[in-house]
Amino acid sequence: MAIKNLSILGSTGSIGTSTLAVAEQFPERFKVVALAGGNNSELLEAQIRKFRPAVAAIAGRKAAEALRRKCSDLPVTILSGVEGMIEVAAAAEADITVSSIVGTAGLVPTLAAIRAGKDIALANKEVLVTAGELVMAECRSRNVRLFPVDSEHSAIFQCLHSGERRDVKRLILTASGGPFRNHTKQELAKVTLQQALKHPNWNMGRKITIDSATLMNKGLEVIEAHWLFGMAPGRITVLVHPQSIVHSLVEYQDGSVVAQLGMPDMKGPIAYALSYPDRLPDVSPGLDLASIATLTFQEPDRDLFPCLGYAYDAIEAGGSMPAVLSAANEVAVKYFLEEKIGFLDIPRVLKAAMDAHTPVSFTNVDEALRTDLWARHEAERIIGAGVKGQGSRG
Amino acid sequence: MAIKNLSILGSTGSIGTSTLAVAEQFPERFKVVALAGGNNSELLEAQIRKFRPAVAAIAGRKAAEALRRKCSDLPVTILSGVEGMIEVAAAAEADITVSSIVGTAGLVPTLAAIRAGKDIALANKEVLVTAGELVMAECRSRNVRLFPVDSEHSAIFQCLHSGERRDVKRLILTASGGPFRNHTKQELAKVTLQQALKHPNWNMGRKITIDSATLMNKGLEVIEAHWLFGMAPGRITVLVHPQSIVHSLVEYQDGSVVAQLGMPDMKGPIAYALSYPDRLPDVSPGLDLASIATLTFQEPDRDLFPCLGYAYDAIEAGGSMPAVLSAANEVAVKYFLEEKIGFLDIPRVLKAAMDAHTPVSFTNVDEALRTDLWARHEAERIIGAGVKGQGSRG
Repeated sequence: MAIKNLSILGSTGSIGTSTLAVAEQFPERFKVVALAGGNNSELLEAQIRKFRPAVAAIAGRKAAEALRRKCSDLPVTILSGVEGMIEVAAAAEADITVSSIVGTAGLVPTLAAIRAGKDIALANKEVLVTAGELVMAECRSRNVRLFPVDSEHSAIFQCLHSGERRDVKRLILTASGGPFRNHTKQELAKVTLQQALKHPNWNMGRKITIDSATLMNKGLEVIEAHWLFGMAPGRITVLVHPQSIVHSLVEYQDGSVVAQLGMPDMKGPIAYALSYPDRLPDVSPGLDLASIATLTFQEPDRDLFPCLGYAYDAIEAGGSMPAVLSAANEVAVKYFLEEKIGFLDIPRVLKAAMDAHTPVSFTNVDEALRTDLWARHEAERIIGAGVKGQGSRG
Repeated sequence: MAIKNLSILGSTGSIGTSTLAVAEQFPERFKVVALAGGNNSELLEAQIRKFRPAVAAIAGRKAAEALRRKCSDLPVTILSGVEGMIEVAAAAEADITVSSIVGTAGLVPTLAAIRAGKDIALANKEVLVTAGELVMAECRSRNVRLFPVDSEHSAIFQCLHSGERRDVKRLILTASGGPFRNHTKQELAKVTLQQALKHPNWNMGRKITIDSATLMNKGLEVIEAHWLFGMAPGRITVLVHPQSIVHSLVEYQDGSVVAQLGMPDMKGPIAYALSYPDRLPDVSPGLDLASIATLTFQEPDRDLFPCLGYAYDAIEAGGSMPAVLSAANEVAVKYFLEEKIGFLDIPRVLKAAMDAHTPVSFTNVDEALRTDLWARHEAERIIGAGVKGQGSRG
């Protein structure tokens, strides 16, 4: 089996460190040739020392200078800024680029990797939510394969092997439902940041944990699934499954439903994306269904969690609308994390931002980034005006 | 899409009539060219009138003569006996032969179909349980494909598409656990025939319903899975799942588990076996997991249901032992259905029959049939001697 050369964007984050753990577990399969981290210079240095990439990038120019001095004993080129990320993403030696920078910041480097013909292991949501049409067109024209790293999309990808694409009736994305799935509207109005940060099953970053509690995360995943698998939104449904054991399902037109299950652990989907079609041994902990004993399922409460419906509205509106939803959500969650707005204010901000926007088709990534920026300003304006204020046209 | 010509062995039984229902639903996909029924002459005549096969067979010679007279207005050749079944199985026009004659009687016609190069949709258990090694060797040498029709094996077959065979860690066959899964040994000693015939989820023949209650059915399926998928018995496990929604699962070595789900309905697996790799629309009723709400799983109780363990013992012993287990079980279940022995006597008969047998390798099907016959006599002898009597060597 040929060794696969990895470039990792966002190596110091949750997915990045899990990816490096997979690379460490299978040195005969993977070689890390390029790393890009955010601001955690210490961790990035430790990763460079351990995995010996030829090139690495860090966000700040000063941080890069300091890191360059610290790594002067190593044959590594240290870069910085967006240019650095782009160099890492498209590193000549890389066979596959792991896109795990969180947020819209991941878009430009990921597109650079695609344009350089690298296969992509995609963990970043915004790449497809913000610019799905552009990104998929680039993938097609460069013959690049996009392997999903989200556990739900990895599950769908695995289940789609059991049938022909034309025979797929429906994709069913499972959602834990978050910590508030059985709350009333009154209870939901009073939840605290601490309560929202307690995800029942997955240990994730703070932003995505809040997105799980609002079901916005699932809504963004519906948009992602729409692009990844070329499915109309009406053929993508969401099913609440609090145990997070069934990661997602595919219903075929004959009535057969194929599901992928496993313990909640990101190393499984990461390793699968990197080694497809092979499966590497003992990546995730084994699943013992008899000891888990009970799996439950319920419909999501769309009145209580309107963010999910907004995602469908955004796809239907098309063009730039999903980008607006996602950017406004990033801002709203940031304010919620700073305890400046309440839990129920998050959907209000999104609704107001979408109402203020007339969707357009993006012809290039700059347009996507400009719309993203507009939506962020608009969300801040809405919050500044007391959340419910009237939006300006964008 | 080319029309597929079907030969159906056992057309008047449960699987046979469901197969004809599928053929009727998709006249543009399937043409029925040959039918073989058991003793239900009236139903077979109706099937001949509706589907117009070129050839049909019925067990008895006199029944065949009567049927020939009744169908004298139709261009159909009516045959009888094993020779008739063999002609139907290997009918020149047939592309695929549905093997759904129950019991060892299915073995010879199914082998005839394989030798004639027909693909097989396999619903008969004994074909593989009694003569798995011979049958699989014939399939390989004739380049014949065996498509499983059992819901569990169909599920495994579907789940195996999600990975390479070398990466499979374990097949997990689900079992409803039957009506007595939570009984105590004391309660089990007193169960009546009527209680045993009430299967919680599936509407099946009487023999297989009793086999579900003893878990012998699952044991026979383990043996079938061993041959169908070339898996060692230690890599085939059984999981009790009372709702019968998850039809079976495959665990891959990376920790990922792929499952196939659906409403309990045989038309799904039948249609899949006939149309593979296509999936036909609206064959089975849709699955609504939110309304089902809860799926549960537990380990099978091997002390309470020793038949399951006997199946593993029989594969380990190898050669002719599974044939002895299956034949002795047919006899024991027959006596139980006649209320001549108790529920707990069934495993006792099997154990005594296996203890009385020294396994040999079959070199031809006649040897398999002779061993089958010996095991039936031995089981009757054991029952006649009061179940616990010492067996003769066979």
